[in-house]
Amino acid sequence: MEELLQKVKLFREERGWDKFHSPKNLAMALIVESAELAEHFQWLTEEESRNIPEDELLKVKDEIADVLIYLVNLADKLGLDPVQAAHDKIVKNIEKYPV
Amino acid sequence: MEELLQKVKLFREERGWDKFHSPKNLAMALIVESAELAEHFQWLTEEESRNIPEDELLKVKDEIADVLIYLVNLADKLGLDPVQAAHDKIVKNIEKYPV
Amino acid sequence: MEELLQKVKLFREERGWDKFHSPKNLAMALIVESAELAEHFQWLTEEESRNIPEDELLKVKDEIADVLIYLVNLADKLGLDPVQAAHDKIVKNIEKYPV
Amino acid sequence: MEELLQKVKLFREERGWDKFHSPKNLAMALIVESAELAEHFQWLTEEESRNIPEDELLKVKDEIADVLIYLVNLADKLGLDPVQAAHDKIVKNIEKYPV
Repeated sequence: MEELLQKVKLFREERGWDKFHSPKNLAMALIVESAELAEHFQWLTEEESRNIPEDELLKVKDEIADVLIYLVNLADKLGLDPVQAAHDKIVKNIEKYPV
Repeated sequence: MEELLQKVKLFREERGWDKFHSPKNLAMALIVESAELAEHFQWLTEEESRNIPEDELLKVKDEIADVLIYLVNLADKLGLDPVQAAHDKIVKNIEKYPV
Repeated sequence: MEELLQKVKLFREERGWDKFHSPKNLAMALIVESAELAEHFQWLTEEESRNIPEDELLKVKDEIADVLIYLVNLADKLGLDPVQAAHDKIVKNIEKYPV
Repeated sequence: MEELLQKVKLFREERGWDKFHSPKNLAMALIVESAELAEHFQWLTEEESRNIPEDELLKVKDEIADVLIYLVNLADKLGLDPVQAAHDKIVKNIEKYPV
């Protein structure tokens, strides 16, 4: 993830895209990518969604990548570590939803 | 991230939630969480979104966590590694958008 | 719908909310409301979603309302008539997807 | 709107698409369309979003149409009248946010 963050930062800096990357815009882009991911599943049954064909899976992989890239980017702009945030949240979830 | 994945798997298994976690449902939950994240920014100016107050930032941190947890969960159900997917996608992006 | 538009305009004007209602912000709010609507269905099976309880249906009704209100608001800000747009789009869809 | 609903129903029936149109799936499709609409605004400033070029506006018009079509479809499947729902919701909003 650390290496991914460095690549994401370098990518946006080399292209001068920082000016577009306000947290507001990145949050909007994150939803749009999440929706592109969901689009692959919208007309499938749940069972079909568990067995998607290999060529479709490659497209889904790219959408998952886009969501993660924007999430890493957004967290970085806010000074947050997304993996640490997830660890902290799971602790909360364990308390909220006991086994 | 590997440790996060193990925690996410254990969490859902201990609660018997696997049956709800079809890729279709997880993709839908991922959008919903992304929207909850975006909700914090919707009425802010871009400038305001760069300087959100500390207490608001803690809520945003939890939403970022939720998005990552569902993304890790979804990728696992599809047999995909989200970080590897992101690395592969950046290679594609570099070709698509030359400096 | 014309009456609805007049109410929506009056509501935002009386509260001085026009300054927040840029098309960008309204489009973001529209997604957020759509996600709140989808949240009611995310863990249901398709069959369950066809038979939701009455008290849940009342909440869904309010979410549908919120989506329509933002859509009417956004279309108005852009000088568009959403119902006319839908009629025009169905003509295109009929051509695109022949019976 | 009544005429729009009749066209939407006829369109899906003539194509045998009712079996895909569970409320769950339609709610998912509604978000996806809302995201396609938002995509047109994600990198614009709020000011730019108030002055989008004519050719872009035609694309936005089609996305607004898609959102309304799915909303009308979903409401119909749930036995709800979206315009009446919006009128009822505005009454609630007026109470919740006094002038």
